[in-house]
Parts: sequence; C-alpha cells; structure tokens
Amino acid sequence: MKTQRLEAFSDGVLAIILTIMVLELKIPHGDTWADIQPLVPVLLSYILSFVYIGIYWNNHHHMLHVTKQANGAMLWANLHLLFWLSLVPFTTGWMGENHFAAIPTAAYGIVMLGAALAYWILQRTIIRSQGANSSLAKLIGRDLKGKLSPLLYILAIGCAFIHPALAGFFYVAVAIIWLLPDRRIELHLSEIED
Amino acid sequence: MKTQRLEAFSDGVLAIILTIMVLELKIPHGDTWADIQPLVPVLLSYILSFVYIGIYWNNHHHMLHVTKQANGAMLWANLHLLFWLSLVPFTTGWMGENHFAAIPTAAYGIVMLGAALAYWILQRTIIRSQGANSSLAKLIGRDLKGKLSPLLYILAIGCAFIHPALAGFFYVAVAIIWLLPDRRIELHLSEIED
Amino acid sequence: MKTQRLEAFSDGVLAIILTIMVLELKIPHGDTWADIQPLVPVLLSYILSFVYIGIYWNNHHHMLHVTKQANGAMLWANLHLLFWLSLVPFTTGWMGENHFAAIPTAAYGIVMLGAALAYWILQRTIIRSQGANSSLAKLIGRDLKGKLSPLLYILAIGCAFIHPALAGFFYVAVAIIWLLPDRRIELHLSEIED
Amino acid sequence: MKTQRLEAFSDGVLAIILTIMVLELKIPHGDTWADIQPLVPVLLSYILSFVYIGIYWNNHHHMLHVTKQANGAMLWANLHLLFWLSLVPFTTGWMGENHFAAIPTAAYGIVMLGAALAYWILQRTIIRSQGANSSLAKLIGRDLKGKLSPLLYILAIGCAFIHPALAGFFYVAVAIIWLLPDRRIELHLSEIED
Repeated sequence: MKTQRLEAFSDGVLAIILTIMVLELKIPHGDTWADIQPLVPVLLSYILSFVYIGIYWNNHHHMLHVTKQANGAMLWANLHLLFWLSLVPFTTGWMGENHFAAIPTAAYGIVMLGAALAYWILQRTIIRSQGANSSLAKLIGRDLKGKLSPLLYILAIGCAFIHPALAGFFYVAVAIIWLLPDRRIELHLSEIED
Repeated sequence: MKTQRLEAFSDGVLAIILTIMVLELKIPHGDTWADIQPLVPVLLSYILSFVYIGIYWNNHHHMLHVTKQANGAMLWANLHLLFWLSLVPFTTGWMGENHFAAIPTAAYGIVMLGAALAYWILQRTIIRSQGANSSLAKLIGRDLKGKLSPLLYILAIGCAFIHPALAGFFYVAVAIIWLLPDRRIELHLSEIED
Repeated sequence: MKTQRLEAFSDGVLAIILTIMVLELKIPHGDTWADIQPLVPVLLSYILSFVYIGIYWNNHHHMLHVTKQANGAMLWANLHLLFWLSLVPFTTGWMGENHFAAIPTAAYGIVMLGAALAYWILQRTIIRSQGANSSLAKLIGRDLKGKLSPLLYILAIGCAFIHPALAGFFYVAVAIIWLLPDRRIELHLSEIED
Repeated sequence: MKTQRLEAFSDGVLAIILTIMVLELKIPHGDTWADIQPLVPVLLSYILSFVYIGIYWNNHHHMLHVTKQANGAMLWANLHLLFWLSLVPFTTGWMGENHFAAIPTAAYGIVMLGAALAYWILQRTIIRSQGANSSLAKLIGRDLKGKLSPLLYILAIGCAFIHPALAGFFYVAVAIIWLLPDRRIELHLSEIED
C-alpha cells in the first residue's frame, strides 16, 4: 500500500484542525478595540497551537517522505496521532478563554504530551517495518528533539500549577526547538532525492 | 473514469466528519476539572466514533485499491455511504450529551446500521461491475465481518432500551472485530501489488 | 495550466459544503424521539441539498474530465460557481428550520438558480476556450437537462408563494432528472478513455 | 522536497477558510425578507473576502507553478501566509456584523495588510532560493500590483476612521486590480508550459 493516501488524509485532517481553531475567536458584539481585548489570550493560544500544528505537519511530511510502504499498523498509529491532535482546538480554546488558568494550561500540555507520544509510536512503527537500514532511523538520528519535548511538556504541566507563565515558557521553548532549522535533516533529505 | 477523484473526495468528507465531531466537545466556561467532567461521556462517544470513521476510511481505502474503474452507480453508492457517515457527528453528540440515554444510544446504532448497509451496497455495486473474477470479491472472501456487523448493530439498538451499557458493549465489539488485523487481507493486498 | 489543482480545490470546497450542512442539525437537549421531531424538515432539506451537491460534484467531475487546460477565466467562472454553492448550507438551514415557509423556500430556489447559471457560464467558458470540436460541447450535446433546470427553479420560486409542497415537488423533480443515468454520457466518456 | 504537498495543504486550508466564512451568515429565526435584511452587510463582506481568497488561491497557484523545489524556509513562509488568511473569517464577520463600523473595518485592512506582507515574504523566499534567473522573478516582473496593494490597504485603514465607504472603496479597488487579467502572466505561463 502506498503512503500517498495516508499523507493526503492526514493533510486534510491537519488543515481542518488548523482552520477550525480560529472559530474559537468568537466575533464580539461591540465594535471597539476594547471589545476584542478579551480575545488577546485566545489569539495568543491560537498562534501557539498554529505553530505546533505547523511543526507536526512539517515533521509528518518529512517522516512519510522516507516511508515507501504503509501497513495496517501504520494507518492506526497515524490515526492515533490525529486523534490527539484533534483535541488541540479544544484545549487551545479552553486555555485561551480562561486566560491561561492553571488547569486548562495543564490540560493543554497533557494533550501535547499525548500527541508527542503518539508521534513517537508512529515513528517506531515505521522504523520497525523498514527493518535494519531504515531510512527513517537514519533521518531522525539520535532524535534529541523528540526525546526532549515530552520532558518539557511534563515540566510545563507541573509548572502550570505554580505559574502559567512558566508553563507558557516551556510550551514556547518546545516550539522554538523545532522551528530551528535542522541543517542535518535538510542535507539528508536532499541526498535522498539525488 | 478513474477512482482517484472518488477517493480524494471521500477522503475529504471523512476527514471533515472526523474533525467536526470534536466541535461537540463544547469548551466549558469554568477552569476546573469539575467543569470538564460532564464532557467525559461526550469524549467517550467521540473516541468510539473516531475509531469507527477510522475503520471506514481504512476499509474504503482497501476497497478502492482493488477497483480500477468507477461508474455512475458507484459514485452514487459512495455518496449514499457518505450521507450516512455524515450523520455520525449528530448521533455521536446526541448520545454523548445525554450520557448514553436509551433513545440517543439507539439512534446511534440506526445510523451505524445505515452506514453498514450503504457500505454493503457500494461493495455489491463494485463487484457487479467487475464481473466474474472480481478482485474485490476475492479480497473480501466470505465477508464474515461485514455480515456480523449489521446483526450486532441491531442487537445494540434493541439492548439500548434495556441498558445502554449493553448497547455500548456491542458497539465496542464491532469496533474490535474490525480493528483485529486481517492477515489474509494484508497478504492478499501485497500479492496484488507484487 | 493543468485542471488538476482546479479539480482538487473544487473537491475540497464541495466536500466541506456537504459536511457543514449537517451542522444545521442542531443537537437537541432532550433525549426522546419527540425532541428530534422538529429536526425532520431540517433533515429533509439536508437530504435534498446533499443530493444536489452530489449532482454538482458528479457533473463537475465529468466536465473537467474532458477539459485539458485551464485559464484565468475558467478559474474565476469556477469560483463563481463555488460562491453560489457555498450559500446552499444557509438556504438549506433557513428553509428547514422554518418548515418550508414561503420565503425561505423561494430563497432556496434563488440560490439554486444562481448556481445553475454559474454552472452554465463555466460550461460556456470552457467550450469557448476549446474552440470548434470542443469535447465538452460534444459531451453535453443539446444539454436538455441544463436548459430545463433553471426553468424548473423559476417555477419553484413562484410556486413557493402558492404552496411550499409545490415548490418542493419541482426541486425534487430537478434532482430526479439529473439522477437518471445518462447512458449517452457514460458511453461517450468510455469512448474518450479508450 | 516537491512543492506538491505544500500546494495540496494550502489548497485544503484555503478551501476551508472560504467555506467557514459562510457560517457567519447566521440563519435567522424568522422567515421573512426582513429577517435576512440585517445579513446584507454580512453578505457583502463575505463576497469581498471570497474574492480576496480567490485571488490569493489564484496567485498562489501561479507562484508554486514556477517553483520546483520547496525548502524549510518556504514551508514556514507559507504557513505564515496561511495564518494571516485564517484570520480573514474573523475580521470579515466582525466588519459585516457591525455594518462596516470604523474599527472593525480598519481591523479588516490590518489583516489584509498582514496577508499581503506574508505573501511578499513567501515570494522573496522562493526567489532567493531560485538564485539568479529565478523563474518566479521573471513571472512577477516589476510586481506593480504587489507593491500597490499594501499602500492601498494602509490608505483604507486610515480612511476607515473618516468614512467606512471610503475604506470599502479601496478594498474593492485592490480586488479589481488583481481581477483584471494579466495578459503578460498568462503569456509567460503558456511559454513555460510549452
């Protein structure tokens, strides 16, 4: 089975998740700047989640790029990942509307942690199917970012109960880690394509 | 007519169905765990339907994989299936929000039964068009799962009026039956691809 | 410019239109059959529009199938069609929620008329670009259905003010006309593919 | 990395943005023309944004058409553009529901300005990656439209506080500038394809 339809379906779900999150920016009845001021934390949490979904799309893209064949286990590991990501609009909206209160901010981290573990499971499933000399295993290397992220999420969940800004700091930190261009991967990908 | 656009369109509809279901997880106004406690049955019914839509996507994928040509009858049989599946977010939300009350739980089964029959009709339409030696007919074999599912749905609909947990048991049972990997199909598919 | 991306984009919009219509089936608070009884007209208008969007997708599919190249005029004629179709969820919901009252039922016809004219414009734009021997011109032939539909919509709009059932009759009639398999087109299409 | 998946993902997001905007046309409870009269400004702002999103889709299509390879920087510049466009349903609805009041009308322009700048950044990112002899640089030429639009948006934002009709005039002007067929580009594109 080719990975093409898996990719197209995931793209569809990710595009919808990205776009329905904006529906949490509820249109206010008034027409002054003051009326949209309460939306600022909602917008901030939207931007954070937009970047996260963008990162997932990006990494998912790279991962499937080096995966030629899909099997049943991969389809379900992929749906499992999409399940966690589908909860992101909910936690994003809950956190934003409650102005980063402790419990919604922790819930945000729990869903991100679930997504990170689901991603890791999908990765392992693909690598196992590719056997020794797996091109995905080569691509991710030691996978430092992948190992660091869950730890930072757990830290953020704990910190949410001390001060939400601390949790926010760790959420932003994870995003920045992944946004930093990974010269090694780009090189590796261009090698594969040559 | 190629089946490609049929596949892409179905993927789009299924991806949207999967994702709009999450909109039923209405963001609560409070910021405590108690505030999201009433959402637990909504989340449970969401997970059940997510798995069902995943199974349909999976099976649909396999079915169209062995279908080379699409005709008008197939397009409409496919739209008929999508119609029933498009009602799943409604029954999922209704069942979840009413904490698995008898009638919504039965309504859930009625829509799943409609989808199962629509799937069967689509299957028959494809097999008929392929004539003797249909590769889809070979793929599904005796189609035990396909024959068992409607029976289990009917049982679940009846049981919903006795005790919702009984209905829930049958809904979960159908999902598990389909989730069990079907070694025969995977083998068959890899033969086709070789 | 290839028509592929035009097709993919239209599929996306049509799939979303089809699916968001179901959001008008608002989940009731009660858990009895009586609670969903007021939804019956909403469901009926949903089914009608589902079939219409299915017909448009089908015909659009056939039309682009015989169109090799897209130009700027086609892109905009296509967006114009999608604009009218994007209003279908609104008129569908308005008609259904008001139990086929005169004005919403007429408004439904006005949007369908707009879509029919937009489809005709798109058709003319493609035929003009293909010049003499246009394969689309051959495909549609005398285009009886295309000429009859706007007339029936106009009739339905007028009849909505006499009795909604009369308007409903004409709406269903248009759908049936298009659902009847068009042996000539299927033959023609299989010739093209040979 | 091919630009195909980038294109498919952007198409998905644009199709969803286009379609969820129509959800702001809230179905009224009454069934008379008077009941939908308050929706007229919402419809007008919907039409304006529909045309804008159509223009973006069109230009994005042309831009990626002459881009063979995508890199990480492009993926993020593209997501940045999609972010601004994802805010269009919000500002469209806010402007429409407040009947083109000053601040929502200015906010509409701010988001359009953000999208225009994001588009320009994406364009520069692609041109830089293509080096000298960039086919995109040739395609856009002096990019008069691209340079004029931000200026007109800024004018419109300022004018919103004088009279909304003036701002509306500039918004419509930008749309018309882009709708005018660009014979040079169509010629250039057909050359490339030959």
